Amino acid sequence: MTRHQEVHQTDASELANALRFLAADSVEKAKSGHPGMPLGMADLATVLFTKHLKFDVKNPEWPDRDRFILSNGHGSMLQYSLLHLLGYEGATIKELQRFRQLHARTAGHPELGYLPGIETTTGPLGQGLGNSVGFALGERMMNADFGDDLVDHRTWVFCGDGCLMEGVGQEAISLAGHLKLSKLTLVFDDNRTTIDGATSVATSENHAARFAAANWRVLHADGHDHDDINEAMTEAKTSDQPTVIIARTRIGFGAPTKEGKSIVHGSPLGPDELAGLRKNLNWPHEPFVIPEPIKNKWRSAGVAGATERLAWQDRLKGISPATREKFERRISGKFPPTLEAEVKAAIKSAVATPTAAPIRKGSLAATAVLQNSMPELVGGSADLTGSVLTKPDNMQLVVPGEYAGRHVGYGIREHVMAATMNGLALHGGFFPYGGTYLTFSDYCRPSIRMAAIMNIRVVFLFSHDSIGVGEDGPTHQPIEQLASLRAIPNLRVYRPADGVEALECWLDAALHSGPSAMVVARQAVEPVRRVERPDMPSRRGGYVLQEAREKRDLTLIATGSEVDLAIRTAALLEKSNINAAIVSLPCWETFDVQDQSYRDAVLGTGPRYAIEAALPMGWGRYVGSEENVFGVPSFGMSGPGPQVYAEMGLIPETIAESILNRLGAKQSVTA
Amino acid sequence: MTRHQEVHQTDASELANALRFLAADSVEKAKSGHPGMPLGMADLATVLFTKHLKFDVKNPEWPDRDRFILSNGHGSMLQYSLLHLLGYEGATIKELQRFRQLHARTAGHPELGYLPGIETTTGPLGQGLGNSVGFALGERMMNADFGDDLVDHRTWVFCGDGCLMEGVGQEAISLAGHLKLSKLTLVFDDNRTTIDGATSVATSENHAARFAAANWRVLHADGHDHDDINEAMTEAKTSDQPTVIIARTRIGFGAPTKEGKSIVHGSPLGPDELAGLRKNLNWPHEPFVIPEPIKNKWRSAGVAGATERLAWQDRLKGISPATREKFERRISGKFPPTLEAEVKAAIKSAVATPTAAPIRKGSLAATAVLQNSMPELVGGSADLTGSVLTKPDNMQLVVPGEYAGRHVGYGIREHVMAATMNGLALHGGFFPYGGTYLTFSDYCRPSIRMAAIMNIRVVFLFSHDSIGVGEDGPTHQPIEQLASLRAIPNLRVYRPADGVEALECWLDAALHSGPSAMVVARQAVEPVRRVERPDMPSRRGGYVLQEAREKRDLTLIATGSEVDLAIRTAALLEKSNINAAIVSLPCWETFDVQDQSYRDAVLGTGPRYAIEAALPMGWGRYVGSEENVFGVPSFGMSGPGPQVYAEMGLIPETIAESILNRLGAKQSVTA
Repeated sequence: MTRHQEVHQTDASELANALRFLAADSVEKAKSGHPGMPLGMADLATVLFTKHLKFDVKNPEWPDRDRFILSNGHGSMLQYSLLHLLGYEGATIKELQRFRQLHARTAGHPELGYLPGIETTTGPLGQGLGNSVGFALGERMMNADFGDDLVDHRTWVFCGDGCLMEGVGQEAISLAGHLKLSKLTLVFDDNRTTIDGATSVATSENHAARFAAANWRVLHADGHDHDDINEAMTEAKTSDQPTVIIARTRIGFGAPTKEGKSIVHGSPLGPDELAGLRKNLNWPHEPFVIPEPIKNKWRSAGVAGATERLAWQDRLKGISPATREKFERRISGKFPPTLEAEVKAAIKSAVATPTAAPIRKGSLAATAVLQNSMPELVGGSADLTGSVLTKPDNMQLVVPGEYAGRHVGYGIREHVMAATMNGLALHGGFFPYGGTYLTFSDYCRPSIRMAAIMNIRVVFLFSHDSIGVGEDGPTHQPIEQLASLRAIPNLRVYRPADGVEALECWLDAALHSGPSAMVVARQAVEPVRRVERPDMPSRRGGYVLQEAREKRDLTLIATGSEVDLAIRTAALLEKSNINAAIVSLPCWETFDVQDQSYRDAVLGTGPRYAIEAALPMGWGRYVGSEENVFGVPSFGMSGPGPQVYAEMGLIPETIAESILNRLGAKQSVTA
Repeated sequence: MTRHQEVHQTDASELANALRFLAADSVEKAKSGHPGMPLGMADLATVLFTKHLKFDVKNPEWPDRDRFILSNGHGSMLQYSLLHLLGYEGATIKELQRFRQLHARTAGHPELGYLPGIETTTGPLGQGLGNSVGFALGERMMNADFGDDLVDHRTWVFCGDGCLMEGVGQEAISLAGHLKLSKLTLVFDDNRTTIDGATSVATSENHAARFAAANWRVLHADGHDHDDINEAMTEAKTSDQPTVIIARTRIGFGAPTKEGKSIVHGSPLGPDELAGLRKNLNWPHEPFVIPEPIKNKWRSAGVAGATERLAWQDRLKGISPATREKFERRISGKFPPTLEAEVKAAIKSAVATPTAAPIRKGSLAATAVLQNSMPELVGGSADLTGSVLTKPDNMQLVVPGEYAGRHVGYGIREHVMAATMNGLALHGGFFPYGGTYLTFSDYCRPSIRMAAIMNIRVVFLFSHDSIGVGEDGPTHQPIEQLASLRAIPNLRVYRPADGVEALECWLDAALHSGPSAMVVARQAVEPVRRVERPDMPSRRGGYVLQEAREKRDLTLIATGSEVDLAIRTAALLEKSNINAAIVSLPCWETFDVQDQSYRDAVLGTGPRYAIEAALPMGWGRYVGSEENVFGVPSFGMSGPGPQVYAEMGLIPETIAESILNRLGAKQSVTA
């Protein structure tokens, strides 16, 4: 080692130690948190943020910045320490001192929107790694649209063993390798320690070989040697494959008795250990005190990217106004002005030529309409393109190495499909949707939850939405999935009843800032919307589709494929002189926030019954009791769809008879 | 090739063709199904079932049989054809002709219990592969208990690309390699075709390298060359690692225009293609007609294992009566006679010394009690052993290569943990449970659903069950998970309120034949059960924990950690002369099947309110409207647990005040 390198190394160690002590002291003060990872990854973070990451703290939303993702989100204090030292607005010492306290911007795990510089919410392992596929893919797809001058940045991810053990992490590795996302670099904190002890208690994976099998470039580094780290990161930037840097580290680096041990993962060090850490790392400073020279070096690193950003701004000014407008609209997430009109035109045409069709087909038509004015629309499927109907004819495939297409073949990897969609949305410039069968929404549920927590605009498209699936049987017939999705806070769950409602629901999802699940039937149904309604009533969540012929005796509420069933049931009831209004309720979440008088008028004052080929759970809020729901309380069965419907009592005759009996019973009671 | 081999090969091809045509003709008749895989894997199945698999059709439950798992369950007709030709009871031609029809034993995907020889329900990709880890581990663990004489069998799995792309499949590969499950053989149908086209559209994985990285033995075979297949299967049996046979096959083998194409995967061939198949494979026989010589060969294969089974029966007779009794009880799944008494004794002692404790600790104590009389109890954790509290002190670890222990370190692989537990239960001889945080129940949800469909006895243990988690924040605070788990048909969801209820709930789960979720709080609560109740009332799902002092004015219903909160709320209400009864409702599913009079008596006739730190969804059935629930309607927040509770209004003062207001309002309305 030359004298120069030695000095350099010493300086950099001090920078890293500043991160270490801010993290350890904050955890100590909070009496809660995870010091082990920040102590272990501080050197890696220092080299990345001072030498490689392209960013500018004064412009944290600069579209061409590199993205940094902390997939091992429990190490949040590493990120908060970085944000503070680099000078991000709001990442004050005071906030660090409020780590993990109510309403602090320094939550237990990094939360999107709490502080600038946090690109995604992490914590549940594997999610950040999954997102990173979307970030890196988004960069390539924007680059395909706008060229190197405007889009040329990298995605850097930190992760630990947990992210690699999780299935979603494995799916991410496989997909990123396939898609040749060469600007994705994963820094693996190879500390060989998990909560339960040495990683060897639960895994024998040869990580290098595993990544190589998925077509990743594999590099190794001593995670505490800054030169070694720097060399690996430099090399990663030249790779034509995604790159993993397997960085050998010591968890809890520097802690006198806890370094390298599980115990340092998730609890404060305690005063003695922390004092020992200070001694070991030659850090005499009080908690939360960072010497000026060190602080200044970090602050310089925070603005070092300004030159590059200004050059980028110049390039942006240099392009044609039309391109610039396109680029800026895409990045801003604003809607194309033509969108609503195009959807209305499509509705007009659909109403004019009503034909029985699978609702999934209506959904396909809707995405085709959206695609016309939304180049940001990115479809995709977990190997069910022609079955879920995710790809409009003129939507091109995304191909490894070429990213001008708009439909991603995620393979049979539902979980990372959802996580990638989240990453695409977070990257900016895209409105992603991706499809699988509703029953397999369970496979992507953890990522759906993350979209809901982050409130990002993605559409999870789920077809084959009921026992109507038929012959494939219980494993493929969703029963509880509608209720389970509706249970996720902040997720809009749409279940359109025909092609017109599909258009309205898709428009609503596109204009909504948060995530949606679009649930569509496989089987053909009669169109239920046969007259034009300029108010696009699905956008209110629920509406009177068909008023009772005379005074309303009761209200039949249904969603999706069961709206047609409700109409046919009403026709039977009419023969017994019972006048039923039909309410279509494609989106509970939207309906629930309409004003009371609207909701009351829609639902009516008489008896109400719901028809939905799913678990009745949750319907009580509209029909008083789950007993007033014609649903499916148990798992399904294998057989032709219409027969399964009949077996479950979901045919007009059975429902009408049951309603008449109940009305009779009620009348006799009240009489 | 010698003349002998040629003849042999021809014969075997005819055996395989019998499978092919039963499958293709059944799909054709059903006008629905998946012919591609049976045509492609028929040769592999023929060699496996005629030369390697140890079984006896007359004794399909023989404990020492090899297990066969069709992880690519859409190829169900391959399995049904095998079951028919081998002579399994009930697998008649008539049933084959009823493939995919209502109430047929030949459902769209293989369903446990529909026909003998089906070891697990498959269809959702990756699940069978996940189960297989449990089957193979179960064999080793039973072997550790009872020796080679009684337990010495193998687990054979068929799978396709889908199972390998799924995260749960990847987790299974990693875990099986780590656990050195050398008697597990995976036959991978490497047909390079998925629904969306060539597998190359979505994956570039080097499968051989990937398996090798996880410490698997990797063999290759031409999947249509019986000698090659035989050699690989023979070699697999000598491996000291789990083995994958990468079998190169052609999907839709023999179909004139559809072979090797995606279109043959999931639709009937059609009459012309089927006629062409007959011609190509030289199969002149009518649909469902199998020539006697071929049939006889298959029938012989079906009983070839009888000799081995009889030898095994002899060995069983030869062992000591005590060991035999133990073995037979374990296999039968019968409960140890001492179980209930031991739990009662533990309750007696718990009631005698009431102390505040985390409910997860009560759960740990319960598993320790169960373990005393249940050697079949197998614990495990997804890297949260000391946090979820899954391992009683005297439960030993399962170590790769040594299987006498009873606690499995699943690593950070929640999904395959659940799938493995299912496999252990299905293997027989075990009552598995495994733990993670409740918020991560989402990660294992597809496997929980499979347990519910199959009605097998496993306990999914989930701790950190509410906003009480505190500082870890929104990603780690379950909100919708309780509702989502309750939504799964046939799953019992328990949420005990203290150590005594934990004992009762665990006993109930142990005595119940189906699956359960055991949901326990991380934080300490005051014990709510302070007097002995020999009826163990949690076993009725819900009960009056504390009657109102005088006439009951209202009922407060709660679960888990909120029962104590309800008691404290009632104490406040009492000061306003409102007499509240406290109902603890640890298991909705059990309560809902109690007789009406019991339920009415418990719930009372007055106003009812529920307190549960979770989404109110579903509570309407007990309290009339979700508005009467004190719950958590949105995602949580990072901060100390008690502060988050207060922020959400879940403290006695806020709840009591709200109830008093409502009663006042109601009184004014009725006045």
